[in-house]
Amino acid sequence: MTHLSPLRATLQDQPLRPIIPAILCGGSGSRLWPVSRKDFAKQHVPILGGASPFQRTLQRLGGGIFAAPIVVSSAASEFLVADQAAEVGAAIEIALEPEGRDTLAAVTLAACLAARRDPSAIVLVMPSDHLIPDVAAFEAAARAAARLASEGRIVVLGIAPTEPSTAYGYIAPGAPLGTGAYVVDRFIEKPEAARAAELIDAGCLWNAGMFCFRADAGLREIEAHAPQAILAVQRAIDEADGEPGALRLGESFAAAPRISFDHAVMERTTRAAVLAPGFAWSDIGDWKAVWAESRRDGRGVATEGRVFARDVANSYLRSDGRLLCALGVDGLAIVDTADAVLVAPIERAQEIKGLVAELEAAGHGEARSPARVHRPWGWFQTMDRGERFRVKRIVVLPGKRFSLQKHHHRAEHWVVVRGTAEVVRDDEVLLLRENESVYLPLGCVHRLSNPGRIPVEIVEVQTGAYLEEDDIVRFEDDYGRV
Amino acid sequence: MTHLSPLRATLQDQPLRPIIPAILCGGSGSRLWPVSRKDFAKQHVPILGGASPFQRTLQRLGGGIFAAPIVVSSAASEFLVADQAAEVGAAIEIALEPEGRDTLAAVTLAACLAARRDPSAIVLVMPSDHLIPDVAAFEAAARAAARLASEGRIVVLGIAPTEPSTAYGYIAPGAPLGTGAYVVDRFIEKPEAARAAELIDAGCLWNAGMFCFRADAGLREIEAHAPQAILAVQRAIDEADGEPGALRLGESFAAAPRISFDHAVMERTTRAAVLAPGFAWSDIGDWKAVWAESRRDGRGVATEGRVFARDVANSYLRSDGRLLCALGVDGLAIVDTADAVLVAPIERAQEIKGLVAELEAAGHGEARSPARVHRPWGWFQTMDRGERFRVKRIVVLPGKRFSLQKHHHRAEHWVVVRGTAEVVRDDEVLLLRENESVYLPLGCVHRLSNPGRIPVEIVEVQTGAYLEEDDIVRFEDDYGRV
Repeated sequence: MTHLSPLRATLQDQPLRPIIPAILCGGSGSRLWPVSRKDFAKQHVPILGGASPFQRTLQRLGGGIFAAPIVVSSAASEFLVADQAAEVGAAIEIALEPEGRDTLAAVTLAACLAARRDPSAIVLVMPSDHLIPDVAAFEAAARAAARLASEGRIVVLGIAPTEPSTAYGYIAPGAPLGTGAYVVDRFIEKPEAARAAELIDAGCLWNAGMFCFRADAGLREIEAHAPQAILAVQRAIDEADGEPGALRLGESFAAAPRISFDHAVMERTTRAAVLAPGFAWSDIGDWKAVWAESRRDGRGVATEGRVFARDVANSYLRSDGRLLCALGVDGLAIVDTADAVLVAPIERAQEIKGLVAELEAAGHGEARSPARVHRPWGWFQTMDRGERFRVKRIVVLPGKRFSLQKHHHRAEHWVVVRGTAEVVRDDEVLLLRENESVYLPLGCVHRLSNPGRIPVEIVEVQTGAYLEEDDIVRFEDDYGRV
Repeated sequence: MTHLSPLRATLQDQPLRPIIPAILCGGSGSRLWPVSRKDFAKQHVPILGGASPFQRTLQRLGGGIFAAPIVVSSAASEFLVADQAAEVGAAIEIALEPEGRDTLAAVTLAACLAARRDPSAIVLVMPSDHLIPDVAAFEAAARAAARLASEGRIVVLGIAPTEPSTAYGYIAPGAPLGTGAYVVDRFIEKPEAARAAELIDAGCLWNAGMFCFRADAGLREIEAHAPQAILAVQRAIDEADGEPGALRLGESFAAAPRISFDHAVMERTTRAAVLAPGFAWSDIGDWKAVWAESRRDGRGVATEGRVFARDVANSYLRSDGRLLCALGVDGLAIVDTADAVLVAPIERAQEIKGLVAELEAAGHGEARSPARVHRPWGWFQTMDRGERFRVKRIVVLPGKRFSLQKHHHRAEHWVVVRGTAEVVRDDEVLLLRENESVYLPLGCVHRLSNPGRIPVEIVEVQTGAYLEEDDIVRFEDDYGRV
């Protein structure tokens, strides 16, 4: 890069190198249960209809100032991340954590990968599940953050508080650094409500977990304040395998300290700056936030799906299919999904997280797993279940296939209702078109592939005395599950 | 019958001829939506778990003092009535109204059929959907009513009010006729709440639609006060067809005046007597009543099915399958079914009827039809539906069969998951056992029969561009639907 004299051009005019977004895909979003589940978390669920928050995040990064994002996710979500990115046509680099180690490890990982591209690259760290509708304002903030970062600052993007929330940490700005930018005076942990109001009066901002730094500067700060994280992550990268663009980190990742980037670095570095970007923002963190972001009628009622409301006020009513009828209620969140229904006061939306923990402790599988189960090849959902049978709807994506498998306790009937499937059954290979079916007797070795260009959809009828997912012997698998 | 001298035995000791119960199966119970639907009404739904109210009514009539009940029902419910009676082993005589004409026509019909058995038979008219847990107390009341009836009285069984309800008419007792029996002073229409309280203070009873009379005496009173009803019903009986024990009335039934037995006869006859039977009673008329009849915890919460409640009070929570979670609500009825969910304050339970009318006006099929559709041969339920396919679970009762049929727009795959089915497919006859399947191409003439002793259960996968129930050509049918 040409060095521009301060006399010839201000920093504002300096051309910026592309910004590498680092999207952190951790978090379970259990406050948005039952739509969000640990095994299919908020960032991947179409919470606000249409695209998922992760997909909206990718779409926000479509402008020319951004390079291909680095997405840090759990190994279990690899195919979900890849498929959702492909759906919106986004090219991404995926880094898969063998286990979640909080944000320090994730940010370190992103910084290391960015530095491999270019040590002086600008990294913009962001969660995958936040809503920022104004893309232009977001891009302007990203530019401003990048300018500060290019000066060696470790920048945190602050959010202008809209209420004395107890759900976020706060940032106290110090000396000004330019338009809307300040040295960070200090970080304040999630406060009580009264304290939150005082902080807001004092001009503090919310900490929404968005950071910006030059890769080399960020790594220097991490090195200085949390050297173990760098060591663990670099070892895990050396041990990594995976396909191009999807790095599966090695076991050394587990040696990274389980701590947030805020605690480990931001609160300790002398280079912290805060930018008040001024875009509208929501972390759509609970049903109250979803309600607030939804279109509401004159009585404060937001609906999604098939809802019939009569004499209802200040409520969020959502159905994923069934007809949801509410009469004479006020201030409720009612959320209906294929296998679970929630009814709770919208003002107690923050308590859903605890409820889900209780559900899980009580052994309810719905706490963690959604009705629709995502697999590397697509998804399945149990639509009916009897004493000795189970009916699934199964979708296999183009070019994908099951493992080569057999079952000890069940026979299966497959009826193709959309697309064309190639079926291996012992020594046969069959091509099944729409409206054709095949019988897979107990014990036969079988596999379904989708050789076509559109998804294959089948109805599977299983019969047998034992119909759980663990009755499967895999002989060969494209996704390493043998 | 021997005439007993009043000097030798009091009326109390007189042996009674068997009482013929007349069970009126009309009514849609729309206040108990979404569990009760017009096409599968309250009396046939296991509202309180286990047996349906109709079945509980039959079970209450198992004592030796009762003859085989006459069940007056709609033609559409014939097989449901017969199947539910068979399930509890009750022998009944069914009389099917071509259309509902209120209770005068139904009571007249029952009186005519009872008189065919024996003109001096005692008829005990009762709704099919009331709850009377104490069978001994009910039998004692039936005996007492029969004694009054044998003296020529037209008896109404009064219910001791438990609250100033506005949902029932009231009966003012007059001069005493013996233990707990009185001449009826007058009938009072459903009152306002304040008036209801006054009526209760004045010793009035609820009118629950239970009557008792000698068949000939009842017919004489109907003749005197509503002769058109007798004419219409007798003509409809002359025109009737149907199987033994299931009389399908002719079209003349429509000429019966649409009026209640109360208005047409009870309020006019000079022979009206009221008996205060003193048994606990509920018409389980809305969700509040169901809640009141259910076992509740210390905070007033009654649950049915898979329910997880935390910090909930005074509520009725019911799930027919899904996991229903409620947090922090008070005084709600939450009712979840396969295709519809209701959330409403329990104190506004009476308004559900109006809500259902609105749903129907808005074109929501769930207002009227349940997910599980009953047919003469059993039932089916749609379990999954896609753009060009539909999956049903179908149960065919022993000895029953579909019509011989074909479809213009869909092919079907049948997988037998329980029992043994005989399948006709054009010129073939196939015997399908558990775990066997058959393909029925578009346009083929087919039929499924259950030749066995247990129900046949199949999963049907339909494929095609048009998948509604009206794509059916019937060539032959056991149930008169050709």
